[in-house]
Amino acid sequence: MTDVKHMKWWGWGREGVGFHHEDKPNFAPFVLDAVGLDLWSAEKAERPDFDALDVPESKATTPFRAKLAEIVGEEHAHVDDMTRVVHAYGKSLRDLVRVRAGDLGRVPDIVVYPADEAEVQRIVDAAVAQDAVIIPFGGGSNIAGSLEAPREETRVIVSLDLGRLDQVLEIDEASGLARIQAGAQGPDLEAQLGAQGWTIGHFPDSFTHSTLGGWVATRSSGMQSDKYGDIADIAKGLRVVRPGGTLVIRAIPSASTGPSVREMILGSEGRLGVITEVTVQVHRVPERRDIFAYFFKTWEDGLAAMQEISESDATPSVTRISDSNESGFSLATSKESKGISKKVQDGLFAFLEGRGWDMDEVCLSFIGFEGGEAHAKRQKAIVDRIVRKHHGLGVGKGPGVLYDQKKFDTPYLRDFLLDMGAAGDVSETAGPWSKLAGIHDGVYAAANAAYEQIGRKGWIMSHLSHSYHSGACLYFTFAFVMGDEDPLGEYDIVKRAIQQAFIDFGGTISHHHGVGVEHSPWLEQDISSEGVAVMRGLFEAADPKRTFNPGKITG
Amino acid sequence: MTDVKHMKWWGWGREGVGFHHEDKPNFAPFVLDAVGLDLWSAEKAERPDFDALDVPESKATTPFRAKLAEIVGEEHAHVDDMTRVVHAYGKSLRDLVRVRAGDLGRVPDIVVYPADEAEVQRIVDAAVAQDAVIIPFGGGSNIAGSLEAPREETRVIVSLDLGRLDQVLEIDEASGLARIQAGAQGPDLEAQLGAQGWTIGHFPDSFTHSTLGGWVATRSSGMQSDKYGDIADIAKGLRVVRPGGTLVIRAIPSASTGPSVREMILGSEGRLGVITEVTVQVHRVPERRDIFAYFFKTWEDGLAAMQEISESDATPSVTRISDSNESGFSLATSKESKGISKKVQDGLFAFLEGRGWDMDEVCLSFIGFEGGEAHAKRQKAIVDRIVRKHHGLGVGKGPGVLYDQKKFDTPYLRDFLLDMGAAGDVSETAGPWSKLAGIHDGVYAAANAAYEQIGRKGWIMSHLSHSYHSGACLYFTFAFVMGDEDPLGEYDIVKRAIQQAFIDFGGTISHHHGVGVEHSPWLEQDISSEGVAVMRGLFEAADPKRTFNPGKITG
Repeated sequence: MTDVKHMKWWGWGREGVGFHHEDKPNFAPFVLDAVGLDLWSAEKAERPDFDALDVPESKATTPFRAKLAEIVGEEHAHVDDMTRVVHAYGKSLRDLVRVRAGDLGRVPDIVVYPADEAEVQRIVDAAVAQDAVIIPFGGGSNIAGSLEAPREETRVIVSLDLGRLDQVLEIDEASGLARIQAGAQGPDLEAQLGAQGWTIGHFPDSFTHSTLGGWVATRSSGMQSDKYGDIADIAKGLRVVRPGGTLVIRAIPSASTGPSVREMILGSEGRLGVITEVTVQVHRVPERRDIFAYFFKTWEDGLAAMQEISESDATPSVTRISDSNESGFSLATSKESKGISKKVQDGLFAFLEGRGWDMDEVCLSFIGFEGGEAHAKRQKAIVDRIVRKHHGLGVGKGPGVLYDQKKFDTPYLRDFLLDMGAAGDVSETAGPWSKLAGIHDGVYAAANAAYEQIGRKGWIMSHLSHSYHSGACLYFTFAFVMGDEDPLGEYDIVKRAIQQAFIDFGGTISHHHGVGVEHSPWLEQDISSEGVAVMRGLFEAADPKRTFNPGKITG
Repeated sequence: MTDVKHMKWWGWGREGVGFHHEDKPNFAPFVLDAVGLDLWSAEKAERPDFDALDVPESKATTPFRAKLAEIVGEEHAHVDDMTRVVHAYGKSLRDLVRVRAGDLGRVPDIVVYPADEAEVQRIVDAAVAQDAVIIPFGGGSNIAGSLEAPREETRVIVSLDLGRLDQVLEIDEASGLARIQAGAQGPDLEAQLGAQGWTIGHFPDSFTHSTLGGWVATRSSGMQSDKYGDIADIAKGLRVVRPGGTLVIRAIPSASTGPSVREMILGSEGRLGVITEVTVQVHRVPERRDIFAYFFKTWEDGLAAMQEISESDATPSVTRISDSNESGFSLATSKESKGISKKVQDGLFAFLEGRGWDMDEVCLSFIGFEGGEAHAKRQKAIVDRIVRKHHGLGVGKGPGVLYDQKKFDTPYLRDFLLDMGAAGDVSETAGPWSKLAGIHDGVYAAANAAYEQIGRKGWIMSHLSHSYHSGACLYFTFAFVMGDEDPLGEYDIVKRAIQQAFIDFGGTISHHHGVGVEHSPWLEQDISSEGVAVMRGLFEAADPKRTFNPGKITG
């Protein structure tokens, strides 16, 4: 058996790791208030039983299986049910609801784990010769439906798992460039780089279970993107296996060589071939890497401060502000012993109330500074001045642990709530600064109208993150207790309302989660029907046999 | 007649503006030494006679001309010889040699000047209905052969001049975004923005005669790109007229909506449609905008300093260093009264020689700082420290005028030399820091071997500019006196040797001049044959009738 580790077939993360709220006394009251779910009395769903699943048989013919096994070795070509089911979906709420309900869709027929690019090339060529379908698979963390095969697909489906291509191959120290295999997962590649004093600085929420190739394929963005850029800025060179040969984009800092093929691969979600290697910008691990917390009196004040920071001379690594709902959630779900201690928080709140703040409106912000000691200090001085101008208050580094503590935990919380019958999900957008307040309020109104429509008590909260000169990302988290009859039907009503509000109020349908099949219905409204036609033309021309992950992005 | 101004049909810039060396006493000796051309005795070619040209007749049929005139108005649909010849080529050395020799190629049959996007749409649709060809035309400054029609083209060719679409339409002050029509030329749009306190910060060498649409179509880069980014970073939103409808990319700061269609338009050189409007990032005109000069003892020292600056906490707006050849040229061609005065220079050189510097190896560097007073000062302090570490010497702001004085003048100098029979041209690349020294030396060796081959005394010089985290642009200027028999044949030998050296030593074939037909032969070596195949597929799918500027980039 191959030794590539996978997440639980029914949820996020490895077996044995999960969310619990015993050490978070305010969590249960918060959930009760937010979505009417009583965690003290709620019945926890039983752990789903794999043996109860009805896994369809593999359609891979014996000769084709033998051919692939000959390429990768017997032990790296799997047709067992568990491996196939793990590769059937990503980890979206929809994926988990379906897989837990035994709705497996079109399960891949065979999963292969090539050892290197040469094997990937041979797999691709064998698949094309056989008119099979290839779905490249990284960490399996996608939440946009980018990994599932079309249900009507009758051809043999090969899930090509890059998990064994996990090495940092070379660091060009003079250029700050590292050649890394596409299947390397976040912690693993940062460990390899860190051992030599380097970092990519790319930390998406999925970091612990996603891969470099996946980041490129979905145009991922990490929490420190203000400083390090999105993966589209970070990924300079690419190798992509296509039928008959490998597409090679060398790591050139910038070029005017026609429409950027590099940018065609970025976000292509496997539709243009199999990404095997990425040359990324790396930075020396900075002397300082601090996250400071700030309170703002209102969301409007906080937004204005973030905008002003973005056009100032300061270059923070993180700019993030939670709206009042999310701030309340963060404070409620912190561990008692961590973050702001109860006593300090009570004292601070009393102080702010004394100054006329409405504590239900308070917004918690995190701003990060990286670089040399003097540089970090100076950035903070500029930011502090802007914060004060907008009636904000710095509260030091203490609450930064709130941020660090949670940053990779949200999916576990989502699974925990799902066990209790509650849908919790995220949806994110980006827009110009001038439109962010409107998008925020528009999404709230749309979500609340959707909750009303389905007759559920629902929750929504948001934060701004990933600031750019001309705008930022708004990230929404929403939750409600689903009914038994048509849980995904209810979920769709809410999710669709939010996506449509993104468009209606001037945002994009996805800032960093990709399109997949989940966001595809809004693509024409986002980049225009002419834009979609051009993109579809690209896919059809580059993949006339629809070999590579068909049906994603443009349908 | 339409009131859009054009450059000279036979050279750069407007009639009456040109290069002269009366106030640059060291120029003539320098040229004599560099390429063996004696400016005191050389015969200046006569001003080319337009009336002597044999301009082919327009192939536009009377009904088609009437149709276009009906759309744009009689006075904006031109079939006269002068207008057509002005639109036949860009302004590369090859273009000028040909047009001066009466080799006009496939002159466009009609030139139209639409007033707005609606008229562009009607022109495009009329051209498609007629199976005509459209070549979008901005300022006409291109030097990569992106504007000429294929000689074998038998269909009617429409040159679509965007010159009347020259307005800043709207500034979103909160977001730092400006909607600008694609035909606006550099000085004009900066004047419109500047009147309201804004700047794009995009100043390519062609600035005075190039357009926003042209910058986008060729993936242009400006001198302050270290701070403001390349046009690919600056252009956030786009409107592109295509057959039957307009492709609209809204100004979203960052998105993960599949392969970036925005990036497909960038660098497309008109092949995907007609860019009519661009929404660009704009910045408030900074408090400080200073350029400081530095001397380095050697090119190696200077390169090392630029690399260290790029990975430091400093964020200068300009990082530029000339090699010793270019430094010598800069000092020789400065006006007596400007730049470093003779006396100061002599004193400085004596001082440096006293410290053991070889003045033939000295490299002149310019580094720019922009932002608030304190920020600019602090950036400079970081840079000064790095410069000192690499044995460099700051010489203040004085010589910055050398830079300002020359920055837009090179094409005039090129034309002046051409009048005397000398070819002077430029070719630029970009590569990782680790490869720049090798590219530099490799290009020198290749150019010198080419000069040897053609038996001419040739000159080459270079500077580094446009620094990125992982590399920079190297920009080469080369010159030699052409023979009468086959001037372009000799030119090709040199130009080809340089382009091939870019590839051989790890650079790209173009950092910011585009591909056109000039660099197309090297595209497969640059982005791989699979990369070109994907790009060609995009063009063929998006433009199956080959309506838009056929033959460029991918052939």
